[in-house]
Amino acid sequence: MSEFVNVGILGKGTVGGAFRRLLNERADMVEEVSGRRPKVSGVLSRKKGSFDRILARSDIVVELIGGVDPALDYVTRTLRAGKHVVTANKQLLAQHGEELVAAAREGGAQLRFEAAVAGAIPVIRVVQESLGAIPIEKVFGIVNGTTNYILTEMTRTGLSYEEALAQAQDLGYAEADPTDDVGGADAAAKMAILARLAFGAPVRLRDVPYEGIEQIKPDDIAYAKELGLSLKLLGVAERVDDGRISVRVFPCFLYPGHPLAPIEGPFNAVMVESPAITEITMSGPGAGGPETAAAVLGDVVSVITGGSPLFEENARLKVAKDVEMAFYLHLEVDDEPGVLARVAEVLGDHGVSVRSVVQRGLGGEAQLIMVMHPVSEKAFAAALKRIAKLKFLRSPPRSIRVIEEEFG
Amino acid sequence: MSEFVNVGILGKGTVGGAFRRLLNERADMVEEVSGRRPKVSGVLSRKKGSFDRILARSDIVVELIGGVDPALDYVTRTLRAGKHVVTANKQLLAQHGEELVAAAREGGAQLRFEAAVAGAIPVIRVVQESLGAIPIEKVFGIVNGTTNYILTEMTRTGLSYEEALAQAQDLGYAEADPTDDVGGADAAAKMAILARLAFGAPVRLRDVPYEGIEQIKPDDIAYAKELGLSLKLLGVAERVDDGRISVRVFPCFLYPGHPLAPIEGPFNAVMVESPAITEITMSGPGAGGPETAAAVLGDVVSVITGGSPLFEENARLKVAKDVEMAFYLHLEVDDEPGVLARVAEVLGDHGVSVRSVVQRGLGGEAQLIMVMHPVSEKAFAAALKRIAKLKFLRSPPRSIRVIEEEFG
Repeated sequence: MSEFVNVGILGKGTVGGAFRRLLNERADMVEEVSGRRPKVSGVLSRKKGSFDRILARSDIVVELIGGVDPALDYVTRTLRAGKHVVTANKQLLAQHGEELVAAAREGGAQLRFEAAVAGAIPVIRVVQESLGAIPIEKVFGIVNGTTNYILTEMTRTGLSYEEALAQAQDLGYAEADPTDDVGGADAAAKMAILARLAFGAPVRLRDVPYEGIEQIKPDDIAYAKELGLSLKLLGVAERVDDGRISVRVFPCFLYPGHPLAPIEGPFNAVMVESPAITEITMSGPGAGGPETAAAVLGDVVSVITGGSPLFEENARLKVAKDVEMAFYLHLEVDDEPGVLARVAEVLGDHGVSVRSVVQRGLGGEAQLIMVMHPVSEKAFAAALKRIAKLKFLRSPPRSIRVIEEEFG
Repeated sequence: MSEFVNVGILGKGTVGGAFRRLLNERADMVEEVSGRRPKVSGVLSRKKGSFDRILARSDIVVELIGGVDPALDYVTRTLRAGKHVVTANKQLLAQHGEELVAAAREGGAQLRFEAAVAGAIPVIRVVQESLGAIPIEKVFGIVNGTTNYILTEMTRTGLSYEEALAQAQDLGYAEADPTDDVGGADAAAKMAILARLAFGAPVRLRDVPYEGIEQIKPDDIAYAKELGLSLKLLGVAERVDDGRISVRVFPCFLYPGHPLAPIEGPFNAVMVESPAITEITMSGPGAGGPETAAAVLGDVVSVITGGSPLFEENARLKVAKDVEMAFYLHLEVDDEPGVLARVAEVLGDHGVSVRSVVQRGLGGEAQLIMVMHPVSEKAFAAALKRIAKLKFLRSPPRSIRVIEEEFG
């Protein structure tokens, strides 16, 4: 005697298939907890099915096509028609978040996207439902499993970046074309989504500067080990000063004792900081087919049981142009007198203060490994530009950010 | 032009005060995200105010009195009247969960209690809203900050239990009467609540056997350090075999690499395991006034924005009478020939197999420190009972459980 809820599925790939199986497996349980039984009203694949027919027959549309076109058109039309959308599409949300939220408002429909960020870790839910109750100061973490796997393997075994990437591809942790993952674009899209939720600000992908891990050398990791640091690709979204926010993705050394330091392999982890709660940390496996399908089904259950997700409006926060960070600097130089003095002079000219330095000589060649105190990124970039031109440099300088704080 | 939502507050203690301040501070933000502005409709203290008047005037009643009487009466009457309840009262929920859920159903009202377990970590929300989407196999973790602080200090500084407790009391991490915390009853109440949500089974406090940390000696911790283990008070709720669950609280050694091993000081951490998601770990500060108030306000916002929390019904799971665990065993014995052989013989009689053993002699006295392979708790208890009677024992045997699995 229970009502049905009609679920249309767009996309028939790995996640689409996993979701369909899970929906069948868990239909009884969903009915038990929500009072309504989910029923697949149609599946759209590249070759088969009509979106319009599926839309007409569905209460909820689950978008698992990926990419912007035609997903944007389908999702917008669904929401405007007053039907709910659950999606795992981070590019769509990061690039067109505002339009989607507007369409959801227009249609009075729900838009849920737990699966778009951090796999099975319910970070969207936690950030979204904390809104109103606590002011979030900072959301940051490891939101790309591919790069964390590669960095873990480089650290564990001394593999080169290229070798670790090939291994990740063999094991299915990296795609054949890994550009979006290793270049930081995937993490940037996720951080844009998290920042929008945490701060209620319309952060777009173009507001998020990002760097990837392609330039990381085994040398950097070896020296970091000596200094007790571990290397992660971090996404950071934070309030930096009155009315400004900063959202960035960059490889970064973490001091031991940092809650993100022990996160290894393809795992993700996100920390939320607020004066009211100090910090909470959530970690778990990154996005595989089953994890993504579970997150999508969780959203479907939330839609059925009601309760609209929260969107804070109108807080037009500005994006900061500069923030303070500590840096590690690796220089390969000729081993001649005055080199360190000259480098230190250039750094000093730009107000960059050195925290520690290791110098190693090998015949006529030498390496300088320095860690700076926190400094304006712009000031450090200006110093780095001048250092790159110093005639005794044997290869381009390499720099990586360092998280200074030590934790409980 | 916005509607008000009337919030009645029962209780004027630390948490009551913190909640009232936070509600005032965040009223604008709650209105912005939910469309309704919260307004305090009345505050009941021990000396002042009438519950009936507050009930009549409120849409939501926030219960922060603690204890069962009169909280049970107030909460039940509120729910039956069709008004929503937010509470932080773990004893009430653990002892009278079924009545409360029945009253909520009868009145068609919401009952929310994020603040009852693990402070600011949104574990209730995550477990509850995962229901239907993923079958939870196991929920476990460190759910009492007082005991984790004491164990951390004993490990870090070699303090005795009594010294570490006194220090925790000085710093406000332990109450003047710490019995409920150090004896494990507080953790048991929280695990009963988590188990009910995770498995949909009406677990009551009396179904949860618990042990505390009062018997832990610096010796145990010192030997554990040698073996690379760390000591935590764990709450565990798990499906152990077909149709049975086990919910327990006990001090326990964790192998290094276990995600809970690095959780130190007054922090809490909870892990959720499911085949669909492998495992997720959530950690953060335990329940202080501000953390509890933030969790309560989060629930108030959820009530306002609608969306009823999920309760799975009727799954009358049975409680298991026995489970398998590994054990550490510490014996102070006379240093005479045949002691180890005799102990090993008794263990063998009960099917208990030894994984590692360290023997130390000091004059005529010796210590045996043994770690067992996983074995039925009943079998180990029977062996321990016989060992306690061996005539060469110089003091009662001490045993602590050990988590075997290695992670990550």
